[in-house]
Amino acid sequence: MKHTTSAGRWVRDVIKQQSSYHVPPAGDFIKLDAMENPWPMPPEINQAWRESLNDLQLNRYPDPQAADLVPRLRTVMAIPDQAGIMLGNGSDELIQVILMALAGDQVTVLSPSPSFVMYEVLARACGLNYAGIALQQDFSLDMPAMRSAIESHQPAVIFLASPNNPTGSAFQRSDIEEILELAPGLVVVDEAYQPFVNQGSDDFMSRLADYPDLIVMRTLSKVGLAGIRLGLIAGHPDWIKELDKLRLPYNINSLTQATASFAIDHWSVFRGQIENICTERDRVYSALSSMQGIQAFPSDTNFILFRVSGNRAENIHAQLLRERILIKCLHRPGTALENCLRVTIGRPDENDAFLSSLTSLL
Amino acid sequence: MKHTTSAGRWVRDVIKQQSSYHVPPAGDFIKLDAMENPWPMPPEINQAWRESLNDLQLNRYPDPQAADLVPRLRTVMAIPDQAGIMLGNGSDELIQVILMALAGDQVTVLSPSPSFVMYEVLARACGLNYAGIALQQDFSLDMPAMRSAIESHQPAVIFLASPNNPTGSAFQRSDIEEILELAPGLVVVDEAYQPFVNQGSDDFMSRLADYPDLIVMRTLSKVGLAGIRLGLIAGHPDWIKELDKLRLPYNINSLTQATASFAIDHWSVFRGQIENICTERDRVYSALSSMQGIQAFPSDTNFILFRVSGNRAENIHAQLLRERILIKCLHRPGTALENCLRVTIGRPDENDAFLSSLTSLL
Repeated sequence: MKHTTSAGRWVRDVIKQQSSYHVPPAGDFIKLDAMENPWPMPPEINQAWRESLNDLQLNRYPDPQAADLVPRLRTVMAIPDQAGIMLGNGSDELIQVILMALAGDQVTVLSPSPSFVMYEVLARACGLNYAGIALQQDFSLDMPAMRSAIESHQPAVIFLASPNNPTGSAFQRSDIEEILELAPGLVVVDEAYQPFVNQGSDDFMSRLADYPDLIVMRTLSKVGLAGIRLGLIAGHPDWIKELDKLRLPYNINSLTQATASFAIDHWSVFRGQIENICTERDRVYSALSSMQGIQAFPSDTNFILFRVSGNRAENIHAQLLRERILIKCLHRPGTALENCLRVTIGRPDENDAFLSSLTSLL
Repeated sequence: MKHTTSAGRWVRDVIKQQSSYHVPPAGDFIKLDAMENPWPMPPEINQAWRESLNDLQLNRYPDPQAADLVPRLRTVMAIPDQAGIMLGNGSDELIQVILMALAGDQVTVLSPSPSFVMYEVLARACGLNYAGIALQQDFSLDMPAMRSAIESHQPAVIFLASPNNPTGSAFQRSDIEEILELAPGLVVVDEAYQPFVNQGSDDFMSRLADYPDLIVMRTLSKVGLAGIRLGLIAGHPDWIKELDKLRLPYNINSLTQATASFAIDHWSVFRGQIENICTERDRVYSALSSMQGIQAFPSDTNFILFRVSGNRAENIHAQLLRERILIKCLHRPGTALENCLRVTIGRPDENDAFLSSLTSLL
């Protein structure tokens, strides 16, 4: 491999300038950094799942329409009958498909900032312009700024993660409705964390019929199945029909289809885990709120964003790491996330270990 | 859903003009259309596989580096140590990543024609120019035409499927070497069917160190694992480093990683199936060659391309369908595939059913 490649000549500049993705170590850490459900399937459910795979024909290509799985997803996510749906390998692939459908030099993608980083990463990778509109200090939408950005940028697509990652709270319903009225193009409401919202009914999946340019995105990653990579979008059939042309025909493999179908047939198990996570979240939030030098932000998700005083975020993150507790450091000086850390809700013993270590460090 | 969307305004023209992908019916057909290995895992292997999934933590995100799987793939595919590798959800995703890295208005993708359709489909979807250079009548590379096309188009990437789909034969080694010398950019040698080549050593995986702009693509789809969607590319680390930036970080899910690792640990089972398929291929080829009104083309793959006389390809395809035998009709009037059909090698009883039905139809 001593020769020189022609990669420098041919790879697009925007890719060359990008740095490679790095993954934090995991090993035997208490892993509270990735919004995973901390509970595996119970042993008897795991066994039933593995038995259910007996009939899979792995020598055959997957069903490109996922015909067994789709009706189950419609039921468990209450997707309106008239909405079209499309599946992806997690939300990442769906965001990429949406951006590829709209790509172009003069096309702008807009989202509040901070939000899920892949909106910006993938927009830039696909050659689109990206505009991030700062949230207010309390992490609600800055509506005057949003109105003005929509007017000036005329975005082809607006991504609204609600509840938002990494801030943890849902946006005002009326703000999202106003953005849907003002937007000249697609509005993707990313409801990845909807299962953790206390009033479960307050979502936009149920509003699809009202807004032709609304797409709602969901995922199974946060509710116990991050390992199978399954996300979906639901929206007007005219939109889904166009986006589906860019979906790779066999994108959802047979194992994922069968496992997701099985999980939905045993949904009460996952729902129980989610309730447990919500209870733990409220407990961890109370504990954090009562600590000196901590400002915890309210959460509608399975994680909590909190700010530490005394410019100590990086230090506390590193100290926890030394105690083999992995959380996410979001600190960037001079931004809304200055001195902010994010902890995913784990099992009670993991949360106790985190709270106890944090208390000693403060 | 009575409202009008803004899809017509925002979706790129090239996508709007594309037609949706249609999948042929399968049901209880004898399925000889998709280059699948006809044998599932033997029951005892299937059981061991399902037991091996017991330790999977589906509540966690997959290993983005697939650290358990990658060394196994290096061994079973004899990937040189110094080559970089990247995994994808089948070859489709890898082709898409390569094209996304190189996309641009003035960028051209070149491949012989006919070849694997996704090179052209994905090139156009990514906004690149595509040039297909007709093969000769015997489906070998037309080297004068290739030389001239490389000179005039200066392609960023050339895709060479060898053995080629749908024609079935490998290209001349010396022709591929000449293209590697002439090409100004990347040359992807797609060795999806390499396991079915009689002289297994005659591949370009072993030549990676000689050509800095060579990428070799492989897949597990043809050898018995189409359902798990796993492909890979190997090449110079400089190329892989750039391409890997466009890979979605968790693209290969935990189920696929674990299943592929298990399969490689039991590779003799799959190798035995492949030998069986090669024996059957030679038998089916002999039978087809001996039929009046059939011209069968030599195959280094798990399928056979054949031409029927009397302009009867569509008719024979439809008649076989009525007998619940599904093969692929490639007939396009006025092209090199005029009156051509393609049959994938199935189990002996399936091949017998196909040969017997075809004999009666002729």
